[in-house]
Parts: sequence; C-alpha cells; structure tokens
Amino acid sequence: MTENTAPSADLIMQVCFGFWGSKVLFSAIEMEVFTELAKRAENLETLQGRLGIHPRAGRDFFDSLVAMGFLRRTEGKYSNTAASDLYLDRHKPSYIGGILEMANQRLYEHWGHLTTALRTGKQQNEGKDGQGELFEAVYADPARLKTFLAAMTGISRGANMAIARRLPWGKYRTYADVGTAQGDLAVQIALANPHLHGLGFDLAEVGPIFEEYVEQHKLNGRLRFHPGNFFEDPLPQVDVITMGHILHDWNLEEKKMLLRKAHEALPDGGAVVVYESIIDDDRSRNAFGLMMSLNMLIETPGGFDYTGRDCAGWMKEVGFREARVEHLVGPESMVVGTK
Amino acid sequence: MTENTAPSADLIMQVCFGFWGSKVLFSAIEMEVFTELAKRAENLETLQGRLGIHPRAGRDFFDSLVAMGFLRRTEGKYSNTAASDLYLDRHKPSYIGGILEMANQRLYEHWGHLTTALRTGKQQNEGKDGQGELFEAVYADPARLKTFLAAMTGISRGANMAIARRLPWGKYRTYADVGTAQGDLAVQIALANPHLHGLGFDLAEVGPIFEEYVEQHKLNGRLRFHPGNFFEDPLPQVDVITMGHILHDWNLEEKKMLLRKAHEALPDGGAVVVYESIIDDDRSRNAFGLMMSLNMLIETPGGFDYTGRDCAGWMKEVGFREARVEHLVGPESMVVGTK
Repeated sequence: MTENTAPSADLIMQVCFGFWGSKVLFSAIEMEVFTELAKRAENLETLQGRLGIHPRAGRDFFDSLVAMGFLRRTEGKYSNTAASDLYLDRHKPSYIGGILEMANQRLYEHWGHLTTALRTGKQQNEGKDGQGELFEAVYADPARLKTFLAAMTGISRGANMAIARRLPWGKYRTYADVGTAQGDLAVQIALANPHLHGLGFDLAEVGPIFEEYVEQHKLNGRLRFHPGNFFEDPLPQVDVITMGHILHDWNLEEKKMLLRKAHEALPDGGAVVVYESIIDDDRSRNAFGLMMSLNMLIETPGGFDYTGRDCAGWMKEVGFREARVEHLVGPESMVVGTK
Repeated sequence: MTENTAPSADLIMQVCFGFWGSKVLFSAIEMEVFTELAKRAENLETLQGRLGIHPRAGRDFFDSLVAMGFLRRTEGKYSNTAASDLYLDRHKPSYIGGILEMANQRLYEHWGHLTTALRTGKQQNEGKDGQGELFEAVYADPARLKTFLAAMTGISRGANMAIARRLPWGKYRTYADVGTAQGDLAVQIALANPHLHGLGFDLAEVGPIFEEYVEQHKLNGRLRFHPGNFFEDPLPQVDVITMGHILHDWNLEEKKMLLRKAHEALPDGGAVVVYESIIDDDRSRNAFGLMMSLNMLIETPGGFDYTGRDCAGWMKEVGFREARVEHLVGPESMVVGTK
C-alpha cells in the first residue's frame, strides 16, 4: 500500500465530524449571531460581550463560522455573508432558521437513538413512550407548533419558489396547498402568479399562524385558510392540489388514500403536485432523501420517503392519467400527476 | 430578488443535517456493517437479518451508506468500498473506526451542550460535574482507555504516515513519541525507516496497549515503551521528539512547559515535531482545526488549538533555533522546531 494507491480516509473523517458543524450553526442561531450582525459588523470583544459568550470560546466559535462560510471577517470585524443575512436574520421574512431551531431542540437528541430505531423499527421522538404521536405532541403546544411550522418553511423555501415559477400556472385559476403549515408554498405561488386564488388546508390550530404569515406578505385578498383534517374530510375542489413534505409522514395505505382524495377533488385536466426530497430511482444518489426516510423512522410510526417512480406508480394506481418527475432544487423534486 | 442573484440556502441545509450523516456512519460501525461485508457481498435480506436490523429500516440505512459513498450496491448486493474495507473492518490492523466509536459514545452527547460551553467557558464531558478530568476518567477504565487510544490512532493515521516519510529521518537514529497512546506514529515511523529505534512515552497504564500494538506490527526489536508523566518527569533523551494531538489538550503555560522539556531533552541539531489540526494563520480556512479547538473547550479545562505561527513563536521562545510549518494531510499540519 503506497501513498498513491491507498484509499483516502478523508470522507470518513469529514462525515464523522459533520455533527460539529451542525452544532456550531445551531448555537449561532440559538445565540442570535446572525440577527445581531444584521444590524452592523462588530469586532470580537463587542460581539462576544453582547451575545454573552465566554472569552475562552468566542474567537474559535466565530472563526469556525467564518471558515464554514457563514460569516466574514474583515479587518477584525465580523459580518454576515449574503446568505446568512438573508436566511438567518430572525427579523427578515426570508428567515429559514426555524429548521435549525427544530433540529437543535428536537432532532439532534432523537437521532442520538438511531441504532435503537434501526433495531426496533420504532420511532424515537416525543411519541416513543406512548405519549402520543409527533403531530399530537407538536400541535398541542402553540409555541412548539409555531417553531415546527416555521421549520417546515425553512426546509421548503427554495423548492416553493421553484414550484411557483415552474408549473404552467397560466392554465389554472385556483389551488389548495394541503398540509400547508405556515403557508409558504401557497404564498410563493400567489406572489409569482397574480391571477391565482389559493387555499391553505391544515388543522384548525394552524389557522392563526397561516393568517399571520399571509398578512405579512399582504396576500389576504387572494389566500384563505381552509380548516380540515385530511383523514376525515374531503380535500377542497380546486384546479391544482399541492402537498409538500406530507406524503413521507405516512405509511403506504395512507399515502395512497391522500392521492385518491386529491384525485376525487380535482377536475379533469387538474393536477396534483407532490414534492419533497424525492429519492432517485436507483436509490444511490440522493443521500439527503434517504436519510430523510430514516428521519421518518425516528419521527413517525410508519412514514417513509420514496422514489419518483414509486410515487408516479401510486398516482396512476389511483386514477391519474399521467405522472412525471421534475427536479426542483438541491435534494428536492416534484411529482406532477394530471387527471 | 430573482433566482439568479438570491444567495443559496444549500450550505445552510447541508451543515444543518450534517449530524444525520455522522449518526448513520456511527450506527454502521456500532452494528459492524463494514466488518460483516468485508467477509462477502450480501443482499438486503441476508445482511439485515445477520446484523439484527428491522425490515422497516434496513434498506434506507444501507442505501444511505451507498449514497454517502461508504458502500456499493451492484445487482442487489451490498459491498464495501475500498476505503471502507481498509479503514472500517474491525479485523484489519488498518481499522480507524475507534474515532467513530468514541464520537458516538462520548462526543455526540457532549457536543449537545455546546451552547452551555460557549456561555460558561467550561468543559461539558465526564469531568463537568467535578468527577475529575477527561484523562483521569478515561484512564481509570481499561475498556474506555483502549477505545480512546484506538480513537487517537483513527484520527492520526494519515498524518502519521506522512510524517514517517517526510521528515529527513536519515539524519537521526532515535526518537520518542510523547503521549504515544496506542503508538501508531511510533509504529509508522519505524515501518518506513528501518534504521531508527524509537520509544513510546505515556502513562504506565498505556504500556500493555502500546506493546500489543507494536507486537501486531512485529516491531518489538526497535520500539520500546517508556512509562512516564510529562508533568512530573523529564522527557527521554533522543534525536527527535514527536507530539501529536498533545499540545492542544493543555493551556498556554502547559504547552510552553512541554516544549521547554522537549528542548531540554534534545541534543543540538535535534528536532521537536508537533502536529495536529494546526489552524491556518488567518484563522479563516481550517474549519476542522477551529472546531477541534471548540472540542478542547468541551473536553478540557484549558486546552485550545492554535495556528502554525503561534506554535513557531512558542518554540522560539523556549530556545529552538528555527521552526517551520508543513502541511501533512487534510486538516493536519506539523510544526518542526530545530535546536
């Protein structure tokens, strides 16, 4: 074994210490580093003092954020990068830190039990000791609900903006986003397509949070909240039904039931748009999508992620005329079924 | 804000979910996936059954390892990549999984308290409630000690092999590796340089583990264990003293004391070699080195990582004639001081 032919251990080390980077970013969000620096660039001592960081720790912490590409340091002053300023300043509507807050407050610890989940096939979150399921636990606490819904916005923003531009929206007049959470997909579609009227469909508890978000974007004239439970109620009758990061929460029968309800609610020529981190058909490239499925193992009793081919097959099985898969951004793709 | 000018949120998402990749790799080590596949390629059902993985979880788990580049899947059979086979099969002497085991058993949880460490400047590991310091806790338990020492080998192997080739060893006849742990640096130097005789210097508890490792490599004739405590005892008199991942454990005074002891022990023309994930002088590129310093915050009362310029300065301060920094592999560099 010589230097040139020995396989590299770099990837092993890089993945091994991936959790360090996650936690540094989570602490930066928790301590509002980016929100503070959105006001002005600051030197080490001022920033450290203002955020309440110990002098032993501040310099390494901020410089780690520089080296990872989340901050800049120029002539001793730290400042936000363009992406950090846009996405990680809590006071901007473009803030996506909700997903980082949720990962820090919930997922990091639950993923500590991954081996148990792999051995038992059972969820490892708030619901694991029979304290109810994820959604019951989350929806019962308004503060937690808002964090969860904002997290969903955080993880969906890029894909939402792509869907708002890419679908042939000119053909349609109405849409409903099913399991809408804060409503970011509904909002992005309305912003990009002024002729459309949309509904956000979710449990009644979500209403005020959706309405606040729609109000922030001044879209009250064209977006309404439609309370409902997609296990008990029919879906609203509109031209296009979207479901983002919804199907993966549920088992196979539940997935098909939701697609069937969408089919029933749509007119001929109407479309269902399912999107999330859809796994590539060979299940060998979209690592994020595959690990999102392990996240569903940890978070739900029967949920799992799936390939575009899987989803197109279910759509045809419940009656859609055709179904196609289209890549959106990063690990996210959509499957569009036409009735 | 248009699609083309909007900063990307990809980096944020990638770092956010870095801990998923870490945990998937840790569980694979814990469940001996690579050790099992080193015997032969296996299909999903056989591999899942043999490792005791639940059918809900196995396929996503193994395919995640494929997508991250740790396994291959060909015609339905999973097999190790070259790097996984070499470094992650527990039965090979090239195994470096010890660092993954330690990260899984200790660091993942301790890093859960990063925000507290940043606020207080205090360690967050076994020693945090006054139960003694890291090394006391680790050295008191032989099983834990062996895991820890093997972890040190895992994180050092690539750098050790580079040092064994790169230093002008032809000029020297003897060396001592101070804080040698399992002894991998001493072993790699001896393997690459048949004219050298070396010592492994560490606390007496380490002796049997060092000797077992040297025996495995059939180097008993040229490598000896030298028990000692570098706070109480002088360092052995040899031509070259190496210290890998040692200085960063200690505070500034302790660092200089160790360099001073090395200077005292060396002959004129002798060299001290300090290596670890040395931070770049601008403290803006070596993210791993900077986060390793945060790891020292979590793991020790006063340790920290440092730049090549910092270290060269300390070396000159204690009397070394010259000091130079040389990159080794990945985030690792060495600082060589000549007396």
